[in-house]
Amino acid sequence: MTTAREVAQRIVSGRGLPEETAGRGRAPANIALVKYWGKRDEELNLPVTGSLSISLGPLGSEVEVSPAEGPHDAIWLNSAPQPLTGVFARRASAYLDLFRPAPGYWYEVKARNTVPTAAGFASSASGFAAMARALDDLYGWGLSIRELSVLARLGSGSAARSLQDGFVEWHAGSAPDGMDSYGERLPAEWPELRMGAVVLCAAEKPVGSREGMKRSVETCEFYREWPGRVAADLAALKDAIARKDMAALGTVTEGNALAMHALMAATRPPIVYALPETVAAMRTVWAARQEGLPLWFTMDAGPNVKLLFEAKDEARVRGLFPGVQVVAPFG
Amino acid sequence: MTTAREVAQRIVSGRGLPEETAGRGRAPANIALVKYWGKRDEELNLPVTGSLSISLGPLGSEVEVSPAEGPHDAIWLNSAPQPLTGVFARRASAYLDLFRPAPGYWYEVKARNTVPTAAGFASSASGFAAMARALDDLYGWGLSIRELSVLARLGSGSAARSLQDGFVEWHAGSAPDGMDSYGERLPAEWPELRMGAVVLCAAEKPVGSREGMKRSVETCEFYREWPGRVAADLAALKDAIARKDMAALGTVTEGNALAMHALMAATRPPIVYALPETVAAMRTVWAARQEGLPLWFTMDAGPNVKLLFEAKDEARVRGLFPGVQVVAPFG
Repeated sequence: MTTAREVAQRIVSGRGLPEETAGRGRAPANIALVKYWGKRDEELNLPVTGSLSISLGPLGSEVEVSPAEGPHDAIWLNSAPQPLTGVFARRASAYLDLFRPAPGYWYEVKARNTVPTAAGFASSASGFAAMARALDDLYGWGLSIRELSVLARLGSGSAARSLQDGFVEWHAGSAPDGMDSYGERLPAEWPELRMGAVVLCAAEKPVGSREGMKRSVETCEFYREWPGRVAADLAALKDAIARKDMAALGTVTEGNALAMHALMAATRPPIVYALPETVAAMRTVWAARQEGLPLWFTMDAGPNVKLLFEAKDEARVRGLFPGVQVVAPFG
Repeated sequence: MTTAREVAQRIVSGRGLPEETAGRGRAPANIALVKYWGKRDEELNLPVTGSLSISLGPLGSEVEVSPAEGPHDAIWLNSAPQPLTGVFARRASAYLDLFRPAPGYWYEVKARNTVPTAAGFASSASGFAAMARALDDLYGWGLSIRELSVLARLGSGSAARSLQDGFVEWHAGSAPDGMDSYGERLPAEWPELRMGAVVLCAAEKPVGSREGMKRSVETCEFYREWPGRVAADLAALKDAIARKDMAALGTVTEGNALAMHALMAATRPPIVYALPETVAAMRTVWAARQEGLPLWFTMDAGPNVKLLFEAKDEARVRGLFPGVQVVAPFG
């Protein structure tokens, strides 16, 4: 089996310039329209299926990495020092392990998220993508987007989709070392498209995605049909994007999200992220659509809801969801 | 293909005594612990899978049937005359069509439900089971429970489980005419078992079960795995009942209900019966269980929640759900 460090070193070894004092990177968060749920390789974060996301433009992460004195990494999140035993610092240090020139080599990491952490807004995706970019900047590797995507994926699967703006397809790939499993931007622009983030709960998730996926793959009979469902949804979504057909995009996206949450609910023991407020928001969307408003939703592995609509309908959407944070993915 | 009238006539022809002035029947509602979702024969209401329910004792239906002058059936529900074009009268008359000695022969039906109609409390199950019993009483056919179960099923699938108290397994059967698809009581008593009905919404369902099942069978990829899931859950539930293992019964029941609602949500277009109050009730159950209360839930094709617990915990359950209607299925 290939380890993540072997993959990382294969990509970066023999490249680069003398390291800078600090490297910086930023990356957008992304919201999957066709979801990623289930790994075929836990070590390398290789997915069972492809997925397709839209990046959130200005919402995402900024990371600065620099060599540090030690005797351990110094990890900051939103200007707060992170305890070394906490989840955030442990994941960051484990990722840095893939790149340390030698054991006992330490880094200082300053990360800043402009999205709520760990509540379904994929801050880990933008965080690891920004980290890969910061390391590339620090060491002057000059890596391609595809290589950065592979490196980002080693930190968090969905980070593979956070290297670019716009619509990004994460190819599942089939190589055991995952070199063909990376994000690629679709050649499509949709300036009128809007994503609305409705934060219903900013608390940490009761079951993390990594653990939840593993449980679905191992215990949910329905999971056997998930790859076929995703293949059908990916084809339909790419077609909708090519035609700029909002109703088709909304229908596939909403249906795929409900199917992923269905997988979770049929897992043993069941995983249910929805809160009463989640169902209320879903029903608000359905009622509005019934009355002619072209509005759809999606949900990640969490209770929050993201809305999909076009610019012309923003005022009506804000009327329905006063606290919504609206993003124009195409600027 | 065998028609429902052929099946009905095959069972009743050549039997019986001169008809009485009126026939009467009553039947309990039943709540499936392992669910029925999907038909292999729409005409005869033959299911794809078996299912297993608990009857609700005093909650159910009473029906009185008598010959009437015409020129059409006269259908009453809870003392109110039902419009002939309404869903209730149309279904009742279509069922009576299976038994009329000749065209132009009319009946008067007086039905009374002691459960809310069409809100997931399976009033159609107890209604058709009571109707089959009332016709048996009217004509003096002297049918067996098994034969009555087959006749009741021709009106509504889950009515096959409403001929008896206690735990009833509906055998899926394999015969094209469905003569081997009937409900059978399990030889188990569980006097301490309690079912609590929490009515969150008594409105009609937006998508009826018949239409919803058809849509799942035709469009939901996950449906291919449903028969395997049901087979596993049926085996586990029968084992739990035999051992009177409340935690095992609760776990299977709750998981199977969530898996059925998962099937519905992954159907195209999606079917979601849950209301915000449904999720709130689920979370109340989970929070209470976390604190040691042995309490589980199930949900039929509707937004309401039914609770499963034992008599010793009734006071605590009533504390959590003040409006709960508690039933002792074993009297």
